[in-house]
Amino acid sequence: MEQLLDKITSPDSIHGMDLQELRELAKEIRELILSTVAENGGHLAPSLGTVELTLALYSVFDFEKDKLVWDVGHQAYTHKILTGRRDTFHTLRTKGGIAGFPKRSESKYDAFGVGHASTSISAALGLLIASELEHRDNRVIAVIGDGALTGGEAFEGLNHAGQLKKNLIVIVNDNEMSIDKNVGALSEYLSQIRLAPQYRKAKRDFEDLVKKIPIPGLGDKVLKAANSIRYGLKSAIVQGAMFEVLGFTYLGPVDGHDIKAMQDIFRRVKDEMTEPVIIHVRTTKGKGYKPAEESPEKFHGVGKFDKYTGELIKKNAPKSYTDIFSKAIVDCAKEDKEIVAITAAMPSGTGLKLFAATFPDRFFDVGIAEEHALTLAAGLAAGGLNPVVALYSTFAQRAYDQILHDVCLQNLPVTLCLDRAGIVGEDGATHHGVFDLSYLRHIPNINIMVPKDENELRQMIFAATAKRVPVVIRYPRGAGLGVKVVDNPAHLPWGKAEVIAKVGGEADVSIFAVGTMVEVAKKAADFLKSRRIYANVVNARFVKPLDIDTIYELATDSRLIVTCEENVLAGGFGSAVVECLADLSVVKPILRFGIGDNFVEQGSRVQLLEECGLTAENIADTIETAFRKLSQHKNNIQYFL
Amino acid sequence: MEQLLDKITSPDSIHGMDLQELRELAKEIRELILSTVAENGGHLAPSLGTVELTLALYSVFDFEKDKLVWDVGHQAYTHKILTGRRDTFHTLRTKGGIAGFPKRSESKYDAFGVGHASTSISAALGLLIASELEHRDNRVIAVIGDGALTGGEAFEGLNHAGQLKKNLIVIVNDNEMSIDKNVGALSEYLSQIRLAPQYRKAKRDFEDLVKKIPIPGLGDKVLKAANSIRYGLKSAIVQGAMFEVLGFTYLGPVDGHDIKAMQDIFRRVKDEMTEPVIIHVRTTKGKGYKPAEESPEKFHGVGKFDKYTGELIKKNAPKSYTDIFSKAIVDCAKEDKEIVAITAAMPSGTGLKLFAATFPDRFFDVGIAEEHALTLAAGLAAGGLNPVVALYSTFAQRAYDQILHDVCLQNLPVTLCLDRAGIVGEDGATHHGVFDLSYLRHIPNINIMVPKDENELRQMIFAATAKRVPVVIRYPRGAGLGVKVVDNPAHLPWGKAEVIAKVGGEADVSIFAVGTMVEVAKKAADFLKSRRIYANVVNARFVKPLDIDTIYELATDSRLIVTCEENVLAGGFGSAVVECLADLSVVKPILRFGIGDNFVEQGSRVQLLEECGLTAENIADTIETAFRKLSQHKNNIQYFL
Repeated sequence: MEQLLDKITSPDSIHGMDLQELRELAKEIRELILSTVAENGGHLAPSLGTVELTLALYSVFDFEKDKLVWDVGHQAYTHKILTGRRDTFHTLRTKGGIAGFPKRSESKYDAFGVGHASTSISAALGLLIASELEHRDNRVIAVIGDGALTGGEAFEGLNHAGQLKKNLIVIVNDNEMSIDKNVGALSEYLSQIRLAPQYRKAKRDFEDLVKKIPIPGLGDKVLKAANSIRYGLKSAIVQGAMFEVLGFTYLGPVDGHDIKAMQDIFRRVKDEMTEPVIIHVRTTKGKGYKPAEESPEKFHGVGKFDKYTGELIKKNAPKSYTDIFSKAIVDCAKEDKEIVAITAAMPSGTGLKLFAATFPDRFFDVGIAEEHALTLAAGLAAGGLNPVVALYSTFAQRAYDQILHDVCLQNLPVTLCLDRAGIVGEDGATHHGVFDLSYLRHIPNINIMVPKDENELRQMIFAATAKRVPVVIRYPRGAGLGVKVVDNPAHLPWGKAEVIAKVGGEADVSIFAVGTMVEVAKKAADFLKSRRIYANVVNARFVKPLDIDTIYELATDSRLIVTCEENVLAGGFGSAVVECLADLSVVKPILRFGIGDNFVEQGSRVQLLEECGLTAENIADTIETAFRKLSQHKNNIQYFL
Repeated sequence: MEQLLDKITSPDSIHGMDLQELRELAKEIRELILSTVAENGGHLAPSLGTVELTLALYSVFDFEKDKLVWDVGHQAYTHKILTGRRDTFHTLRTKGGIAGFPKRSESKYDAFGVGHASTSISAALGLLIASELEHRDNRVIAVIGDGALTGGEAFEGLNHAGQLKKNLIVIVNDNEMSIDKNVGALSEYLSQIRLAPQYRKAKRDFEDLVKKIPIPGLGDKVLKAANSIRYGLKSAIVQGAMFEVLGFTYLGPVDGHDIKAMQDIFRRVKDEMTEPVIIHVRTTKGKGYKPAEESPEKFHGVGKFDKYTGELIKKNAPKSYTDIFSKAIVDCAKEDKEIVAITAAMPSGTGLKLFAATFPDRFFDVGIAEEHALTLAAGLAAGGLNPVVALYSTFAQRAYDQILHDVCLQNLPVTLCLDRAGIVGEDGATHHGVFDLSYLRHIPNINIMVPKDENELRQMIFAATAKRVPVVIRYPRGAGLGVKVVDNPAHLPWGKAEVIAKVGGEADVSIFAVGTMVEVAKKAADFLKSRRIYANVVNARFVKPLDIDTIYELATDSRLIVTCEENVLAGGFGSAVVECLADLSVVKPILRFGIGDNFVEQGSRVQLLEECGLTAENIADTIETAFRKLSQHKNNIQYFL
């Protein structure tokens, strides 16, 4: 069947289309997005919400020269389909395929790569200034959700752009209620202003005057008309005050599914305006797909599902680490009344939803505001409470300074639970949590734990919240190993590693592993055993404090030392072991397994771990090769490879 | 002479004082601050600006239970003097003395430790929630400057506090013009609102009605009165809109040097208000000391000066690294028209003032907004420009995620110049730039350079801006070594170390040093030579990419390897060398010198470097001891110490 989409050879193709065609095109795009995401997983609800918005933008602006920056970028599927990626769209989020987020290396229409929230205004302002300085005549548009607007960086960007008075176009894609809430606060404010002295005096004077009007009824009419000025003013202020204060002209709200209405406003902005403009567009997340409209949260980022029923296709998997955290922190909080919990717009993703339902007064969702989340936690701790902050590892990067400066420098008891640590899979380079060990372990006073399985995660949550020091626990995305989770976890000795397999006498190899790599290391040791190479296997548990005694004891008794981690090698766990051995003046050959010095792209977790060499087979083979070479250099191990 | 200050035995002591006494006390405090800072250096202008504000706060609130959080904390000297630290105030900013910033370990009245901007609202909100949950009845007050308000985290905090509707008291200490600027933008906004359709219709209806008033002159009076309502409304909105939108009640502005006026407003807030409140206090930076009032920038943070004349006491020192950067970047920008420069509220401190004066259109001061600064730079780079961002090392911690996610992941050409790297001295733990090598070097695509002297800094700035890749250059606070700075710097080979001293044949030791430690290493090598231990000395220049060839060559030819850096040892330069040697399977004993796993407190640079063991003497002695032990273990170097 001939489709309108077939006619889209370049983004300009839609300039000639009439409204009827654009609406038809919207349907085709929705169907393509729906069937692709049902198959590959992805950000369904956000992208269904912006189909008309994207079409309206492309029908008015010329993105051969104009620049479009999507905040976060999980709503950019229509943009991708319109810009030469329709035929490859079925590869969305798969290894080597189309990325789930805009990416400069993928298309010239992806003006700026995104993935973390609240950067679009800053980036777009940069692009705009660059165009001006290089005398290019083009518009720059940032599209930002109301959620991403709560991030401090968005405010910094607005504040700067408003002050520069450059012709930046910011589209607020308002698909939730947070802007309405602000409006509520402003309304209360306006009631109070009516009580302000200047205002009260003016009003009194005015009313006195009006009373003097001798025509019956006219005075009342005048008063009523005056009130309506006030309400008109109020209503105009209410809708855009936040932005107008910062120097933007506010337009809207406009229905984000009415292509014509948006075209009109975009044309007006394009033709008439030269100042910073905010266009407030209201959209419905999941628009056009009933299950997603009804449960936008469930379909925000979603795995495979049946597109006819909206049923998620569940794998028969053990409970996830998130589930374990979710229950454990509630159980801890039942005993310890000082535990409070904070998340940054991720109550479902982090599993804190259960905590929120159980202890609503002790739960705080601060919005997309990781910096505030950590300093707030430090404040709560300084006030005597025992705060737990749950974030995704990659987003915690936003709060590095606050972890260092507000939590650790003051040695305050904050437990930071980092979900989605390590390789996350299909979300790709912007979302892997592979830097946390490196950006955290050099901070004085910090403690870092990594569980080898879901039972140990529960154990660590109990231990961390009881210890009252700055602690980070990092754990992976997805299902646990399926081990039994003990309700009352055994005591976890602080800073002690767990020796999982110990060779009698001198070992050929000692493998120190953390987290997910413990299971892999065990398997690698089994492979090696079948090749008559005998390995100690250690579950490090703590990246900080390192269990120096165990490391020293096993390292001095082994010929080769190996470390394994799901983190970048530079500055990570293996780096800590190498430093530790150097400081102990244990001079031994060391092999480190982890993620190399490059960004890891998208793919399934299994594919990517294989690509990074983090499989039992590769680890065993590499150790075997090294060990054989080492054995040939018995008397001079100094440069054995 | 008996002083009123003698009567201050506890903060409560001032509750009984009348206005006259408080004014007298203000004078005594100003004199104490002035004479102390003239001697020790410190944040004079901010602290002189808040004397009356602090007295008014202490005379109304009860800080035995109420909590006071100072943003940044450079304005808290009066607070320190009133809370038991008058007698030790002369030790301000000296080793073991009173810290320049509030510090929890120093006093129970320092409710939250600070140093980096924009954290006070978040921290105060945490303290307030903790008080509520623990059923303590106390007020929590944050004092934040208008500058710190531009930081995104402050916005995140306001947004959350406004939504929670808790009784947080935020005092905006407005000593500059930035709030006025915002007001300007809002005023323009209100002019536009008058053109909004609803408003225009109401106004037309009203005027039609008024025209019908049959009494001569009365119509005009009514119109005038109606206008004055509008202006009253406008004026009330203008003053607080930003805060009211976020859910705060706005009070002020009030004169921050009028104790009585502030007491009145504070009492009203204390007695009557239960919602989040903003009190807008206008103060004069440097108040009461003419030289500081006239040049608040010069006296913001200042070294020793003559308190009678306001003349800075200049040491006869070589040009500072900041001066070298300042001129070099202007020289580069003269040749390369695509260079643009960004700073975050530090045009003087970073030396970009000269750039701003030379290329006003290519310079951007974004306010205290490091996150925005880096993403803006990434946007400028994506638009084809060649941006340079100049920050202090410690403040760049705020932008870790943006450096990683926006600059390096996209491999965009941004040159990040980190001033005040290493030990900064008297500003203490919150300000040392000793983490940058560790939080940066694990980021893929990044390049990191560290100059050994001021001439090399110039060389690196030329090399970095020409290379068009993500680069960080980090250099120390204060004077260079006094070497000749070459106008047209020699080509700097990318990723190559400089071998400064090379022993013929096998060396006893190879010392790899970066930055300031190169000079120290040279001296250490001289000491060792006199003890017949012969050392290679290498100026690493690049922490990333490491010069693997040089490291391999020298390391394999030496018996002991040494690294020296002014950075924490964990994850830093020495860590990179240890990792590199492990990966090369060079199995050799290694000694690392750097900053240990603890926060370094305040003191002079010389004192602190000595405390950290970073002197030529200590390095030489430690190397000698290790080398002697090593020589006794010729045949088994594996655990030689």
